[in-house]
Amino acid sequence: MNRTEDRPLALVDGHAHAWSPNNARTRFRAGLTGPTAGVAAGHTQANLIAVPADWAYDLVVFCQRNPKPCPVLDITDAGSFTTVLADGADLRTDLPRYRVWENGELVDEPTDVRGHWRDDLVSVLIGCSFTFEWALAEAGVPIRHLEQGRNVPMYTTGRQCRPAGRLHGPLVVSMRPVPPEHLAAAIRESSLLPAVHGSPVHCGDPSGLGIGDLARPDFGDPVDIAPDDIPVFWACGVTPQAAVMASRPPFAITHAPGQMFLTDARDEQFRVG
Amino acid sequence: MNRTEDRPLALVDGHAHAWSPNNARTRFRAGLTGPTAGVAAGHTQANLIAVPADWAYDLVVFCQRNPKPCPVLDITDAGSFTTVLADGADLRTDLPRYRVWENGELVDEPTDVRGHWRDDLVSVLIGCSFTFEWALAEAGVPIRHLEQGRNVPMYTTGRQCRPAGRLHGPLVVSMRPVPPEHLAAAIRESSLLPAVHGSPVHCGDPSGLGIGDLARPDFGDPVDIAPDDIPVFWACGVTPQAAVMASRPPFAITHAPGQMFLTDARDEQFRVG
Repeated sequence: MNRTEDRPLALVDGHAHAWSPNNARTRFRAGLTGPTAGVAAGHTQANLIAVPADWAYDLVVFCQRNPKPCPVLDITDAGSFTTVLADGADLRTDLPRYRVWENGELVDEPTDVRGHWRDDLVSVLIGCSFTFEWALAEAGVPIRHLEQGRNVPMYTTGRQCRPAGRLHGPLVVSMRPVPPEHLAAAIRESSLLPAVHGSPVHCGDPSGLGIGDLARPDFGDPVDIAPDDIPVFWACGVTPQAAVMASRPPFAITHAPGQMFLTDARDEQFRVG
Repeated sequence: MNRTEDRPLALVDGHAHAWSPNNARTRFRAGLTGPTAGVAAGHTQANLIAVPADWAYDLVVFCQRNPKPCPVLDITDAGSFTTVLADGADLRTDLPRYRVWENGELVDEPTDVRGHWRDDLVSVLIGCSFTFEWALAEAGVPIRHLEQGRNVPMYTTGRQCRPAGRLHGPLVVSMRPVPPEHLAAAIRESSLLPAVHGSPVHCGDPSGLGIGDLARPDFGDPVDIAPDDIPVFWACGVTPQAAVMASRPPFAITHAPGQMFLTDARDEQFRVG
């Protein structure tokens, strides 16, 4: 069920960067799927994880205790499928693709979860590193996975998150190869956006994170690394999915990795400096 | 029960800025009280709010929905009185002074809450603006309330926080008068520390926040404002206390305004730029 056939939407439609968030959500609601890197320039993208209300406290505390991978942008009331981050959006239909989990097992990857929805679900929206790619690009940093028409590569690391109640699991990271002359800008620009993972957690040798082979990501696509490029690792909002796999709550709904929720918020709202 | 007799500890003991956080906590455990602005230079100070476990979810979601006044630095497991932020600390004894609340009413202001402690209490530690005063001072910004030997003035505003479950209440702010030539530095330096309230929420005319008279703060002490000074308002970690007063949970323990928990964390850990 690991889908790698989807090309980034920004390459499928050359105008995707100029879509409004509402326009993007309307397309996703109508069935369009694919990685959302490069879509709706300057607007904040978010990871989704929805769990039954009796797991919500553990999830929210897990996020607080692991703020680099899990910077929370919104928490809905139980059963609600709207969010203050996007006017008129429906969290059950407006993401390109979802993952449905039962007891930690992936059971479905639909484009609409109205049939799976439960009235006791609490949705947590978590900042996504696609958000800071605009800031990196504006600072001249090449975004290799977009250049190569691929989803960003994501890796499950050997680092354990700080647990919370029944929730535990490893840190997941996204990786972008950065030419040395752009490393300072990549770190500086992402640091100023802590709400979307902020500064990198690691640069260079992937073994420092317990990652064996960059050519075999756990989520997303492998990306070619130029000879001088330095692999730069940012904490990733797929981390709660890894916690779901490790901790096996009875039920959860998440986004499919790389296929994010487009909010109306602007990245600049989250910029601190 | 509004105590204004306590002078800032930094003025009572000229060496307080050089105390280690552990040394400060030891003194507080032994009974020393007073506002902690200026104590243990460069170390992060925190607001405390402890509520019964069945109110903890509402509190944590309230904090997430109001990140400027309530940036969460740690959440304890129920009943625990230790924190990852301070090795060997006891949250029941190591603050200078506490407030104990029953049904939203202040019932005690002890220096030790072991007698009030319950096994179902969840403690939330929230960033404090005293933390960024070091950064402001290093950038040349005068800290008027310290110059004048007073606690920082805090005001209940006319702005309502975004509610969460049973918790609602107004935004509380701290105010520092800043000379115009230092305003840019004050905003820049605090902006880079979002974990301790970050940038100001308002500058200038207090009526913009629904504050009637700067000479009559709701918490802390009034501070003299020089003719050219601009009042600068930062979101304040007393906001959860205002939510306790407005929402009337059956029980809560907080710090006394201005008398904070000294963590071992260094402000630099929370600096994003």
